[in-house]
Amino acid sequence: MTVSNTPLLLKVLAGEATPRPPVWFMRQAGRYLPEYRALRATTPDFISFCLDPEKAAEATLQPMRRFGFDAAIVFADILLIPRALGQDVWFEAGEGPRLGTLPPVEAMRDQTADAGEALKQVGQTLSIVRGQLEPHRALIGFAGAPWTVATYMLDGEARSIGKGERAQARTYAYSEPEKVAALLDVLVEATAHYLKMQADAGAQVLKIFESWAEGLPEDLFESLVLKPHQALVKRVRELGVTVPLIGFPRGSAALAERYASECDVQAVALDTACPLEVGRRVQAIKPIQGALDPLLLRAGGLMLDRRVDQLLDAWGQGPWIFNLGHGILPDVPIAHVEQVLKRIGAQ
Amino acid sequence: MTVSNTPLLLKVLAGEATPRPPVWFMRQAGRYLPEYRALRATTPDFISFCLDPEKAAEATLQPMRRFGFDAAIVFADILLIPRALGQDVWFEAGEGPRLGTLPPVEAMRDQTADAGEALKQVGQTLSIVRGQLEPHRALIGFAGAPWTVATYMLDGEARSIGKGERAQARTYAYSEPEKVAALLDVLVEATAHYLKMQADAGAQVLKIFESWAEGLPEDLFESLVLKPHQALVKRVRELGVTVPLIGFPRGSAALAERYASECDVQAVALDTACPLEVGRRVQAIKPIQGALDPLLLRAGGLMLDRRVDQLLDAWGQGPWIFNLGHGILPDVPIAHVEQVLKRIGAQ
Repeated sequence: MTVSNTPLLLKVLAGEATPRPPVWFMRQAGRYLPEYRALRATTPDFISFCLDPEKAAEATLQPMRRFGFDAAIVFADILLIPRALGQDVWFEAGEGPRLGTLPPVEAMRDQTADAGEALKQVGQTLSIVRGQLEPHRALIGFAGAPWTVATYMLDGEARSIGKGERAQARTYAYSEPEKVAALLDVLVEATAHYLKMQADAGAQVLKIFESWAEGLPEDLFESLVLKPHQALVKRVRELGVTVPLIGFPRGSAALAERYASECDVQAVALDTACPLEVGRRVQAIKPIQGALDPLLLRAGGLMLDRRVDQLLDAWGQGPWIFNLGHGILPDVPIAHVEQVLKRIGAQ
Repeated sequence: MTVSNTPLLLKVLAGEATPRPPVWFMRQAGRYLPEYRALRATTPDFISFCLDPEKAAEATLQPMRRFGFDAAIVFADILLIPRALGQDVWFEAGEGPRLGTLPPVEAMRDQTADAGEALKQVGQTLSIVRGQLEPHRALIGFAGAPWTVATYMLDGEARSIGKGERAQARTYAYSEPEKVAALLDVLVEATAHYLKMQADAGAQVLKIFESWAEGLPEDLFESLVLKPHQALVKRVRELGVTVPLIGFPRGSAALAERYASECDVQAVALDTACPLEVGRRVQAIKPIQGALDPLLLRAGGLMLDRRVDQLLDAWGQGPWIFNLGHGILPDVPIAHVEQVLKRIGAQ
């Protein structure tokens, strides 16, 4: 019997039937792994850790060795892009990211074409990982979507008008729509170059993370999510990138079908709250990814098995990539990850 | 010309056509009003303020005098129910609610039939308001939905396994489903008695606030939201309550049609993120309420007018109650509220 080396993930993205769904987990390289915590402790500054290709590659590979996921996702952070555009980014322990003053949009626009070069360490990480990853495992690159990255970038300027970066940035989108649109344009251009660099370095799939699509009214979903994603896909293709793209408009299940129809990504990632029937309707349009509740993964037990079975029943005919609906939590027992992989037949 | 005294809100809930949608705003009695802040300062303890019928009635009436909304909603809090069941509730300034140890479920079950009597001050508030409210304005009573109230009640017990009451309570729903189901049963029964007391005291409409339907996977939406709402509606009717009910499963637009079909409330309130087309589909089943973005109300300007017009275009043929998609924010300029009321023709 000849065994194909084409990764399952790429088969699904090409619309091929597979005997089981490929499996990977968002944030699979992370704090729930003792080996990650040990590695991470060697470089306390998070951005420095992300930009150390040897260490970032090791973090990327750790969950592959332990679990044999069907895909590795490069260890990096969505806030590397603001850094490449000249905005300071740092992490306070236990408090999440902090960003400095937003540079003038013209100054940032001048940096967009160099975003890939500015973050070439991520490309080096990808090359190292590709060299060590078995050929039947896929390698995923990623970037934050323009609006999600913008919510963090606008945090400083919008601080006076609201609490919490989503509310701040959204208020800003209402009160200064032209400024926000200009920032999104810059982010589309910079992100396109960043993704192209990742594809050139060996990423076989690229994922666009829109964490803060959640809760947006439809008109803002159009202007802040859908249109920038369309522009980003177009620009990525213009730059010559041919690998498949996965879009993840998190928290917008009621608009998932529309997103799938109107945005030319190759697959749509669904989140925890997406109803099974919505997933089936999106699946009729293009491949889907998702959407086990990370809190159920943490809880484990019989309910976890039952839900995995329910997802297999609903979406198992494919095209479907098994994943969580959000990132894995730091306190998930490793045995629960193994339980899921066994249930799917991936281990 | 004879002018009917039947409140617009009741007409819409009865399926009648109205020349314009009735308008009220969630949290319309609140900190954005200087007169509320002044009144509130006279009783710093929030629970004591809620249980002072004269002051709560005054808070309820303040926005009616200033804006002439089509409905008043009794000033109270969803966490009065745990208090009636024997769990301590208090508010720390700037930190939100705190709850004491969860009493044994048997002890709480013994209190359910007395929940109305235990919170009779809310009934007194309703009576005072009804005596002062013009007859063509509707009076709304409300309660938190069982799961939403449970998320707060479980906070103490679940603290060890997660961060944030939603994640904590949801993990608990996975790891101890029988205990959570028993708590929801108790809350259904207590809430039914509490709502009956409010109807007896003059509430003409009752609203069920499910703030934490948001983000739930479909299986938990069924067990934690849909089934308890169905049980609550059934129990309220068994107790002889005849006034219309509005259900508000916040943050679940992708399941709004299903909720409208399967839950026997008279209207469904939609939140900010609900697409216009979903609203139209729900409207084909029963009256809807919603869903202007509170952040757009804060921003004001031309975009606010445009969005009000868009809502009028999409849902204006009714049956529709104009409202926000979430509660009004403390820093909303009063002029923006007036702008919306004028635009709708309600002022």
